[in-house]
Amino acid sequence: MVIIVKPNTKEERIQDLIHWIEAQNLRTHVSSGDYSTIIGVIGDTSKLDEDLISGLDIVEGVKRVSEPFKSVNRKFHPQDSVIEVGEQKLKVGHGNFHIIAGPCSVESEEQIISVAKSVKAAGATMLRGGAFKPRTSPYDFQGLKADGIELLLEAKRETGLPIVTEIMNANHLPLFEHVDVIQVGARNMQNFELLKELGRTDKPILLKRGLANTIKELLMSAEYIMAGGNERVILCERGVRTFETATRNTLDLSAVPVLHELTHLPVIVDPSHATGVARYVKPMALAATACGADGLIIEVHNDPPHALCDGAQSLRPEQFEDVARGVRAIRSTLAGLEG
Amino acid sequence: MVIIVKPNTKEERIQDLIHWIEAQNLRTHVSSGDYSTIIGVIGDTSKLDEDLISGLDIVEGVKRVSEPFKSVNRKFHPQDSVIEVGEQKLKVGHGNFHIIAGPCSVESEEQIISVAKSVKAAGATMLRGGAFKPRTSPYDFQGLKADGIELLLEAKRETGLPIVTEIMNANHLPLFEHVDVIQVGARNMQNFELLKELGRTDKPILLKRGLANTIKELLMSAEYIMAGGNERVILCERGVRTFETATRNTLDLSAVPVLHELTHLPVIVDPSHATGVARYVKPMALAATACGADGLIIEVHNDPPHALCDGAQSLRPEQFEDVARGVRAIRSTLAGLEG
Amino acid sequence: MVIIVKPNTKEERIQDLIHWIEAQNLRTHVSSGDYSTIIGVIGDTSKLDEDLISGLDIVEGVKRVSEPFKSVNRKFHPQDSVIEVGEQKLKVGHGNFHIIAGPCSVESEEQIISVAKSVKAAGATMLRGGAFKPRTSPYDFQGLKADGIELLLEAKRETGLPIVTEIMNANHLPLFEHVDVIQVGARNMQNFELLKELGRTDKPILLKRGLANTIKELLMSAEYIMAGGNERVILCERGVRTFETATRNTLDLSAVPVLHELTHLPVIVDPSHATGVARYVKPMALAATACGADGLIIEVHNDPPHALCDGAQSLRPEQFEDVARGVRAIRSTLAGLEG
Amino acid sequence: MVIIVKPNTKEERIQDLIHWIEAQNLRTHVSSGDYSTIIGVIGDTSKLDEDLISGLDIVEGVKRVSEPFKSVNRKFHPQDSVIEVGEQKLKVGHGNFHIIAGPCSVESEEQIISVAKSVKAAGATMLRGGAFKPRTSPYDFQGLKADGIELLLEAKRETGLPIVTEIMNANHLPLFEHVDVIQVGARNMQNFELLKELGRTDKPILLKRGLANTIKELLMSAEYIMAGGNERVILCERGVRTFETATRNTLDLSAVPVLHELTHLPVIVDPSHATGVARYVKPMALAATACGADGLIIEVHNDPPHALCDGAQSLRPEQFEDVARGVRAIRSTLAGLEG
Repeated sequence: MVIIVKPNTKEERIQDLIHWIEAQNLRTHVSSGDYSTIIGVIGDTSKLDEDLISGLDIVEGVKRVSEPFKSVNRKFHPQDSVIEVGEQKLKVGHGNFHIIAGPCSVESEEQIISVAKSVKAAGATMLRGGAFKPRTSPYDFQGLKADGIELLLEAKRETGLPIVTEIMNANHLPLFEHVDVIQVGARNMQNFELLKELGRTDKPILLKRGLANTIKELLMSAEYIMAGGNERVILCERGVRTFETATRNTLDLSAVPVLHELTHLPVIVDPSHATGVARYVKPMALAATACGADGLIIEVHNDPPHALCDGAQSLRPEQFEDVARGVRAIRSTLAGLEG
Repeated sequence: MVIIVKPNTKEERIQDLIHWIEAQNLRTHVSSGDYSTIIGVIGDTSKLDEDLISGLDIVEGVKRVSEPFKSVNRKFHPQDSVIEVGEQKLKVGHGNFHIIAGPCSVESEEQIISVAKSVKAAGATMLRGGAFKPRTSPYDFQGLKADGIELLLEAKRETGLPIVTEIMNANHLPLFEHVDVIQVGARNMQNFELLKELGRTDKPILLKRGLANTIKELLMSAEYIMAGGNERVILCERGVRTFETATRNTLDLSAVPVLHELTHLPVIVDPSHATGVARYVKPMALAATACGADGLIIEVHNDPPHALCDGAQSLRPEQFEDVARGVRAIRSTLAGLEG
Repeated sequence: MVIIVKPNTKEERIQDLIHWIEAQNLRTHVSSGDYSTIIGVIGDTSKLDEDLISGLDIVEGVKRVSEPFKSVNRKFHPQDSVIEVGEQKLKVGHGNFHIIAGPCSVESEEQIISVAKSVKAAGATMLRGGAFKPRTSPYDFQGLKADGIELLLEAKRETGLPIVTEIMNANHLPLFEHVDVIQVGARNMQNFELLKELGRTDKPILLKRGLANTIKELLMSAEYIMAGGNERVILCERGVRTFETATRNTLDLSAVPVLHELTHLPVIVDPSHATGVARYVKPMALAATACGADGLIIEVHNDPPHALCDGAQSLRPEQFEDVARGVRAIRSTLAGLEG
Repeated sequence: MVIIVKPNTKEERIQDLIHWIEAQNLRTHVSSGDYSTIIGVIGDTSKLDEDLISGLDIVEGVKRVSEPFKSVNRKFHPQDSVIEVGEQKLKVGHGNFHIIAGPCSVESEEQIISVAKSVKAAGATMLRGGAFKPRTSPYDFQGLKADGIELLLEAKRETGLPIVTEIMNANHLPLFEHVDVIQVGARNMQNFELLKELGRTDKPILLKRGLANTIKELLMSAEYIMAGGNERVILCERGVRTFETATRNTLDLSAVPVLHELTHLPVIVDPSHATGVARYVKPMALAATACGADGLIIEVHNDPPHALCDGAQSLRPEQFEDVARGVRAIRSTLAGLEG
């Protein structure tokens, strides 16, 4: 960490700051220029509170030299992580690309098994489905809960697809015993108590970026899980909140190369929630694949009598098949470019 | 709710949509114009999923006529709510103004009692202090936890000030038995599982706005608590995340009159976390008071040997006294204008 | 336009509003429900001020049924526009993909000709280069101005590449006589006086999205140019301003399919300015191509002695060649998927 | 400026960077730590391109020690600037508080003179009114232009109030000869060509913050005007663009104390455009006054037959009078606190 002290600061105040830093088992290296004094802080500065220091009246600015994250950091773990999922040990990351597909909410046995079969046929390798649903309104449908998980497990038995579903409360963990990948939704990305509990499990965790969280905060939340001993984290970009209203959120695809540079963890993209509109899912799925994502998570429903839902954020199975075909074509083009 | 159908939509598809809506116990009222068809939906539309409908390919747009929130809604509860706090039944809201003050974290018995005495002398009517601390990094200090609550209770016994402290996990509720106001932090504003549990308690809840949450989402989160039976919610504006970096967040003071219009609940403002800089706390505290806030929550530390902390986001007791004096002066000016 | 009137509004006030609307040569269609009155406005509502109406105290909300843009609107011009550029009448749009490449600033004859030759060899079909530079600071280099345009024309004579360069002042238009495409930068997207002047020319205009402008505002700015008689507008997504700091701006690739849906104009993407980092240009160029952009604009410099600039936002020619190869591969994959 | 070089960078590349910096007449001061090398750059770094350097692949980060602005900088001009306006030399800044009021657009002689008289009676000391109007749509009313300025001058003759009106095109400057304060609107804040021209005039300039511009960018734009020789700049906060939709923009009142710290120029606030809703103007005007603004600019119309406009962003004269009374009361409270 580099601390830039304001010009004309009294030497005594600079010494107070240096003593306070050194009392935390860190070393300092002071360099006084014509205009300002710069304090380099050497040692494990991840415990230093950057906000506190930058708020000091004698401090012009603070810059971290090393990132505050460790376990997730590619600098200390240069090779890509590969996360194994399910009994069949599906590999995620390091060139192993997966499409997770399924309905927003699990609604019935018939629905989930039908969707599971059709997405499997189209090339999906994992099944998603919401059992516990985070809803802005307390009056909206909150999911089938434990029954929803049972139905997902039934679909897994039928199709062999590993299942991915969201957790909202650490007390529900016993229900997730046979779930293959536990999802943490965007609204819980900084629910640190939940992250700590998940760090004590040995399940792969799909961690979604919060709507207003920076890439570095996403990494710090992954660090919470890894610091607890669970190194099986898959990151997911799903759009951030901006002033634009043509899409539900603004999908930040630049996060894919940025994350690949900063961390060894796999990075997948959710074009369904990011755009909120089914007809934008295909172009954004292709784009996410082209910029190097390690996978996609896509909403697919299977509801022919409900002509209603056409056009909402979920794809029909035949639309999903078209997306999956395009994604495979882009993947093989990328492989050709590298080869 | 008003649904605007795209021009040239087939009548059959419009009828599908109408049937789907009516199957949910709602009535419709269709008006066909030259350019478009408009479906008015009559009944309790709070259960209808606006996102789903607006994503339909036949829908041009959707507009809610009535807000999706009820218990918090001033339309159904025109008079201001007054929340009673603590054994002394301090009244909050409807012209009863309070300053909650205290340190960011509870550190020791000496510290919390000393701060409590000095903020009480300066005019604070409640004591704040963090026992459980949400931190971006797992390596940062996470608070004294249960011991911190004990120390707050000790300070309450010494000074009589009701105490306000943050909860991060519903499992910790037993520790909060003697806490007077339970705070939900910005990062947990949409931790719906926590909100539901708090809805089952009878404690006043101080609900902070999330960094990227709209005013309507803040109200929906309050609705979660009230829907559970706990009507004692105090809302808190504490800054939103924008591109501006001169302050930690951007304090959205317009939220104060907007909230007063939409809801009967009291609204307080946290200028310390919003700006992150002690020297901006006074002007923003005065501004919040001038635009009609029902109270303030301000960080105050008491650490003379640590000259270090001068200038960070916490005020020293004598600075807090100056702020409180200014706030009282603005309050009495406002009273004069109304009188 | 649909106007939703607040419940319990006096009939007299509703009639005032209706009269005011009808006085503007529009017809109304009123539908009174149990809870609210809805006024449908029929006719050319593009002249109605939505902000004004939605701010009225009797109005609950306003929703446009038809977009306020016309000339740019795909509804009235379903087929893709094709813009012809330069003497050789290069076609842009409707499946005609172009890469515009060149240095941030024109610096010298040697530099611009050398870059022009190398980007042409790598597959660029137009040359970009800044002569007039918009700079945040008045003390930063403001470009070679008229001399820069002369050098671009020299490079055009040498290579045959049409040239693209930015205008900042309508008074400079005579200098742009032989420029093939005039660029309007992000900061001038709502410089309406400049847009009007460009509407009176017959040059293709490359209109960049402003950093905080919505997609609809970008279209309204294109409408300014087209309303003046110049229908040759190429739109450019170049990133929007968000809270994320890992990239200079956040590239909003969803804007590509959204724009293709709303307008018939070609849409290109600028990954260099959006990310601000050379090593992210390739993945984002591939992603932009994959989601259907009609072209790219990429910064390339040619400055081997200045090892310095490696890694900044400009690519070296050999890096650009690699990007162009990838882009062509993605283009041919997309063609295969459609075929 | 402090440049932090990435760990394990080759010495040769560091030397390249140092030579490049020194070739620009700057001195460097290198400090090599265990983990990284830090290059301090000494001299006038305002010409160095921070974006360029921070994009280099060998650079971990860059931090400016000194701000890139000079003329506007309070460090070099510690006392508040006082700007004199009009023939009567009204003083703005340094405790001289002004309310600028008037209609959004000048519509007729009767209208502007009537509004001018009523706002003067209520305590406004300058008259605003739009003659040239920046409109998102080319089909919206663009103002009375030259005729509007004539009518403003007529109102000035009648009332003695100095007039404030917006310029959109430097070519219109001759029309502004008798205008007292020239306003630069938010959309033109980075129209650098216009700023340069205004820097060559001797008129006070009211410079509004752009919707997506940082406080530092606002200061850099003021620097453009001052660098041209015109030191009479008044800054105006008028809201920034965020995800919140309850108000048109989000008024960033923290900008007031931040600007007062960074610059000696006067800072006023526009609550009308920021909120877009008349009933929020009073609370935000009081708040702006309480946090230390040097003045306000408020929209007032005078249109009793048009009952329509009640509730839109403009106040009626009697509402304005109420706001002005409250503002004066807050001003005198603040004076009492300081005294």
